[in-house]
Amino acid sequence: MQNPTGNNGDSKPAPTAALIVIGNEILSGRTQDVHTQWIGEKLTNHGIRLSEVRTVKDSRDKIIDAVNTLRCRYNYVFTTGGIGPTHDDVTSAAMATAFNVNFGVNMDARKILEAHYGRENFSVARLKMAMMPHGVTLIPNSVSAAPGFALENVYVMAGIPRIMQAMFEHVLEGLEKGEPILTNTIGCDLPESAVSSGVGDIQSRYMTVEIGSYPYFRAGSVGVNIVLRSTDPERLRAATREVMTLIDNAGGFPNPMGMQAPLDD
Amino acid sequence: MQNPTGNNGDSKPAPTAALIVIGNEILSGRTQDVHTQWIGEKLTNHGIRLSEVRTVKDSRDKIIDAVNTLRCRYNYVFTTGGIGPTHDDVTSAAMATAFNVNFGVNMDARKILEAHYGRENFSVARLKMAMMPHGVTLIPNSVSAAPGFALENVYVMAGIPRIMQAMFEHVLEGLEKGEPILTNTIGCDLPESAVSSGVGDIQSRYMTVEIGSYPYFRAGSVGVNIVLRSTDPERLRAATREVMTLIDNAGGFPNPMGMQAPLDD
Repeated sequence: MQNPTGNNGDSKPAPTAALIVIGNEILSGRTQDVHTQWIGEKLTNHGIRLSEVRTVKDSRDKIIDAVNTLRCRYNYVFTTGGIGPTHDDVTSAAMATAFNVNFGVNMDARKILEAHYGRENFSVARLKMAMMPHGVTLIPNSVSAAPGFALENVYVMAGIPRIMQAMFEHVLEGLEKGEPILTNTIGCDLPESAVSSGVGDIQSRYMTVEIGSYPYFRAGSVGVNIVLRSTDPERLRAATREVMTLIDNAGGFPNPMGMQAPLDD
Repeated sequence: MQNPTGNNGDSKPAPTAALIVIGNEILSGRTQDVHTQWIGEKLTNHGIRLSEVRTVKDSRDKIIDAVNTLRCRYNYVFTTGGIGPTHDDVTSAAMATAFNVNFGVNMDARKILEAHYGRENFSVARLKMAMMPHGVTLIPNSVSAAPGFALENVYVMAGIPRIMQAMFEHVLEGLEKGEPILTNTIGCDLPESAVSSGVGDIQSRYMTVEIGSYPYFRAGSVGVNIVLRSTDPERLRAATREVMTLIDNAGGFPNPMGMQAPLDD
């Protein structure tokens, strides 16, 4: 059955995901979060939509609340931070409470840590990094050994970007792959309001294309980038052509940038 | 009455805040969020604790859900994004629904926009930027005229960083000022686990000092920064001294960095 957008209607909706960034240092402004953009881009390229991000303190209650809300709403939940050896690393214990399972030493994780540090350097502090909820699957850490873990649809990863990224690359291989979400961006040097009603009209006729409008102010000049996303390259091309015509008719110069569905004609 | 931490117990708890970052472009990875760090730092310096951040799509339902949850939990809620003239700018309408008030043209905002653009350039698209919930207080925009607004304890601001920052500076002047949250940072070149149990012990004896432990891997060497925060400079100094002694005893060199409560002795 054709739907009014011309989409054939049998494409599966994209899997969805949420991210929980855990850490007082992000909220205090000490540390710039880089996880959201990095993970958001990886998921987009994998055909998974990152739908929500929550940044919470190193607090068991806040972590439990966030994970129990989000794991029911989205296909996948990722967390970053709070799985190290210190008193403020409370993520693993919070996960055990959230899932109502026992918390204790994971023997596989212990073996990995013991092999990495050597038995003589394997302190009680380091043993804490093997403390996990019962029934997890380990996520390997190719940078510094201490593993993350997965529990049902929740993936618990480290907070240090290099380590998180290594863990995430491993996790991503095992996730359901959605249809690729393609992005076309058209820039122009018009003020946003010159094209906004036209872009709104195009959006209303292309339900399978998500259209965003991002104005900018640079070196005293104004402009707007229109970003079109879809899993359907034909509809994406058609909507992109309409946006370019709209800009042209409004007296602007439509500038194609980063076209994942190029207009070959 | 003295409490066990030596704090005299009559200091007011710091005001709390939440931030809602609104925009598909942040979730897709297209745009790096810079609001969280900037606002987090400003609030910390103002003695307000940023306690939670949610990043949500340009979706009325998601915005309503986030704002109605957070405005009951925290003293202040800030939002960024979604108040421009395009179809994907749905924040203002969502706020009207969230607060269950009428939505329409704000005459003061209209006047500001008309004066800025000139009557001949004041299009229907631009009028959309004057559409607001009933009963708001405007937040001036010194960059591009179109104002934000406040409704009860919720402050609705633009998404473009320069504009948001100008709005926020204005808002901040009117917020309750908490006692300044002071931060001392001690770096050392030991692995985190070498000091983690000692730091945990210090934390347990200093309830009014928040101690964070942030390991790093740089150019093949490991290290850890211990970050201590408090509104009580005396307790902060005492805890900082203990952390430095701990590092020294563990064979490391304690390196004071960014001391807002310097150890004068």
